[in-house]
Amino acid sequence: MSAAEAQTLRDFSQDASLLALNTATLGHNLDGFGAGWSCERVIDACAERGLGGITFWRREIAPIGTPLAAFEARATEVGKRVRAFGMQVAGLCRTPFVVGRTTPQPLSAMFDDFKASIDMAAALGAATLTIVVGGVEPGHNLRQSLAMVQDRVGQMADYAAARGVGLGLEPLNPVYGGNRSCLTTVRDAVNMIDALSHPAIGLAVDVYHVWWDLSLAEQLQRLKPEQIHGFHLCDWLEDTEDFLLDRGMMGDGVADLKHLRAAVEGAGYRGLCEVEIFSKRSWWTKAPEEVLDTCVARFKEVC
Amino acid sequence: MSAAEAQTLRDFSQDASLLALNTATLGHNLDGFGAGWSCERVIDACAERGLGGITFWRREIAPIGTPLAAFEARATEVGKRVRAFGMQVAGLCRTPFVVGRTTPQPLSAMFDDFKASIDMAAALGAATLTIVVGGVEPGHNLRQSLAMVQDRVGQMADYAAARGVGLGLEPLNPVYGGNRSCLTTVRDAVNMIDALSHPAIGLAVDVYHVWWDLSLAEQLQRLKPEQIHGFHLCDWLEDTEDFLLDRGMMGDGVADLKHLRAAVEGAGYRGLCEVEIFSKRSWWTKAPEEVLDTCVARFKEVC
Repeated sequence: MSAAEAQTLRDFSQDASLLALNTATLGHNLDGFGAGWSCERVIDACAERGLGGITFWRREIAPIGTPLAAFEARATEVGKRVRAFGMQVAGLCRTPFVVGRTTPQPLSAMFDDFKASIDMAAALGAATLTIVVGGVEPGHNLRQSLAMVQDRVGQMADYAAARGVGLGLEPLNPVYGGNRSCLTTVRDAVNMIDALSHPAIGLAVDVYHVWWDLSLAEQLQRLKPEQIHGFHLCDWLEDTEDFLLDRGMMGDGVADLKHLRAAVEGAGYRGLCEVEIFSKRSWWTKAPEEVLDTCVARFKEVC
Repeated sequence: MSAAEAQTLRDFSQDASLLALNTATLGHNLDGFGAGWSCERVIDACAERGLGGITFWRREIAPIGTPLAAFEARATEVGKRVRAFGMQVAGLCRTPFVVGRTTPQPLSAMFDDFKASIDMAAALGAATLTIVVGGVEPGHNLRQSLAMVQDRVGQMADYAAARGVGLGLEPLNPVYGGNRSCLTTVRDAVNMIDALSHPAIGLAVDVYHVWWDLSLAEQLQRLKPEQIHGFHLCDWLEDTEDFLLDRGMMGDGVADLKHLRAAVEGAGYRGLCEVEIFSKRSWWTKAPEEVLDTCVARFKEVC
């Protein structure tokens, strides 16, 4: 990190008020992982440690298939509790895939679920709803798939804006390009955000997905600060073999975290930094208290 | 593919004279894979099918640890046989890693092995020697690691040029960034080639590593045609889960092959297109004759 970069960085060393927890980091109670903590217990544990916010996954608020009204009632309750501690609901994960083989069919079902996810985010009071766009559309090439993404996300923008929810387009590491996100670079995401040019639509930057991209700062300069909807923390482990569920804790990998943050903050970002670690072989096997304590310590030391 | 792109493409539909085989595609007799074919048998099978060239791996010419003189004697024999059929030795894989945890130590051992690999390529009469640079250097960040790569590869350039061997810098998919190649984008590779500006040093473009990169054509335009040392074919399978040994046959995945080739040929490349498929669960389990026949058919149909 250069001296100029160092000057742009906010000071994280004193407290965790700029740290948000993405609950995936605790194993979100899926597939036998996680300690089975309720939303309330997660909220209390984050508040005790002085965090600034929490990002939830839909299935943690209510089981998949819960009618929207019941989901919204529960989301309202959860959101209130977060804010009662002076924290924010930083985000909600996530929309359905909008392209690719596993996109809900017919397409009207995808749009219905997209709208429902916006309603859920609104009920939670979440600042942003994360969009993972889905893989390359069968029978179409990469560029055509991205054009479809742009069109479909664009169709949801007014609905989101009317409910005060931001839509955060998240480019994923190119290794996910086939089946999870044909949007793989910050450059392509910024191009799309530019083309859509809608107040609801911005970018989510995740260390796991962009750590290798030396054009990050240059691309982020093309955005207005308010178009950066989030900055997600973890680390890229040197010997990553499982690219789904083997993310590293900040400081344990090869990502240049302060340099990446300098790029994001140099573009004007002043929001929370959200730790999001999928880690089947390590962090998901540990007690949530230990995971949270480590997140806070590493946030202060190495981020 | 646009009409303009289509116009730049060479016609592959009639024969396989612009196709080269990277022998990894046949399982190169490693770890229980491959049919145990000798170099001679591979050469004969490629010649029978009208291929234009072959790229070998060092361990196929002679076992690891073979003294250089013995290696060179065997390489000379293999190279002669390839050329006797009117084919080229398209390349040799590969140099040692020049940075990262598994780089040979002390550094003089790395340079010695790098020089030996140049000598081996020269003995084979290989047009280019592939450089996979190695992962992020311990204790250093990505940019520092790339600067070390540039310095170390630069030190080998005159040695290579004196022996008539090109050095092909190959950026790998970002998923390999931690431990195999801190050089992950064509952009960074072109920057390095520009900075080194040496007649021996160029770029190897591999579909597996760049299929997601919509800036490919723009970046390749920065190079002279002779700075493009190779174009490697395979496909990115939609549901890639193992990113080491699960590459797809051309036509079985989501890569836009003609569009990628248009970018390479639009930048003036006229060399061979080299099929290189690591496929533990599929192609490595099949008879080499079937694999070769499929490569030729797909080359004509979909590349």
